Amino acid sequence: MKSYYKELWMEVPTRMDFVNITRDVERALGESGIREGLCLVNAMHISASVFINDDEPGLHADYKQWLEELAPHDPSRYRHNRTGEDNGDAHHKRQIMGREVVVAVTEGRLHFGPWEQIFYGEFDGRRRKRVLIKIIGE
Amino acid sequence: MKSYYKELWMEVPTRMDFVNITRDVERALGESGIREGLCLVNAMHISASVFINDDEPGLHADYKQWLEELAPHDPSRYRHNRTGEDNGDAHHKRQIMGREVVVAVTEGRLHFGPWEQIFYGEFDGRRRKRVLIKIIGE
Amino acid sequence: MKSYYKELWMEVPTRMDFVNITRDVERALGESGIREGLCLVNAMHISASVFINDDEPGLHADYKQWLEELAPHDPSRYRHNRTGEDNGDAHHKRQIMGREVVVAVTEGRLHFGPWEQIFYGEFDGRRRKRVLIKIIGE
Repeated sequence: MKSYYKELWMEVPTRMDFVNITRDVERALGESGIREGLCLVNAMHISASVFINDDEPGLHADYKQWLEELAPHDPSRYRHNRTGEDNGDAHHKRQIMGREVVVAVTEGRLHFGPWEQIFYGEFDGRRRKRVLIKIIGE
Repeated sequence: MKSYYKELWMEVPTRMDFVNITRDVERALGESGIREGLCLVNAMHISASVFINDDEPGLHADYKQWLEELAPHDPSRYRHNRTGEDNGDAHHKRQIMGREVVVAVTEGRLHFGPWEQIFYGEFDGRRRKRVLIKIIGE
Repeated sequence: MKSYYKELWMEVPTRMDFVNITRDVERALGESGIREGLCLVNAMHISASVFINDDEPGLHADYKQWLEELAPHDPSRYRHNRTGEDNGDAHHKRQIMGREVVVAVTEGRLHFGPWEQIFYGEFDGRRRKRVLIKIIGE
């Protein structure tokens, strides 16, 4: 069994945004030399997500509005913010969008359907955070 | 290390419904010959889910109503639908229910609790879509 | 390839609460002897979750309030409860918080960011339930 990992550094200039990291994951898979296995991609921070969906700007604007409705950025709303943080909402948004994805690796490629793309979802940006790619197989 | 994959074709005749695919996954596991490992089951389409919960019709009706409240099928509501789609809601429902599950394989069986069943969740049906089963182990 | 599993028994004395199980997972990883691989941690029950977030009591209180707003414990609200259950809400809360996490194992440790902690999320407590830890790798 082979294993490989790579950490990506992200720095999103706004509080909330989505970044397509599919090419980075494909590059890591190429570097790993793994042809059959599983590829885990996860946010290493608890106010961010990794998820798979469509790379369509209207959808991303819809997600932002919807997440803002489900968990508004309102610093006075969250007990968590009494610790000196103002990102209580981000911890909620991240639970909706998820921490991680696991993608099959088949014949050396991410085994994807027609529209699947991997995104980093930032909900408390304007600082550096990491994404982990871990691939095991052979 | 062994690996095995299988794609299931789904065609759900309504916009939203849930299909129990536990037997299909068990069959794929039998075909794989793998006795210890991990089994990934994911929707290959971004307006569908794979999730684990109870096979109880009342619960499924509850889920449908709840998802409709959280992300109504209202074509005018979503910017995504300006691309000519009418399935913006489906991309939201799928994020609540999730893209994938990872199930442990122990002694040649899905290592499940007493009520766990695997479902395909369709949110934009009436066309053919795929589910991927990928199993690695030995 | 090596594989290892362990089931943890949980008994939460209230209907809803979160229990930090990070040390239990680290202990299982030590017992496994696995240094590179993937570690799955999942609830074996469909009214409970395993998720990764911050170990901060204010945040946990926020989550409970938010989940109660999204899926209130109101036995008359859910068709599922006509089966004699009163936990329809718990099946909904579990979908928001997720069934499972997959964590990378690198150099014999859970490959975590600075604040990641693993929690068992109970939404229908006051009885014994299990969490599964399954680790594969070498």
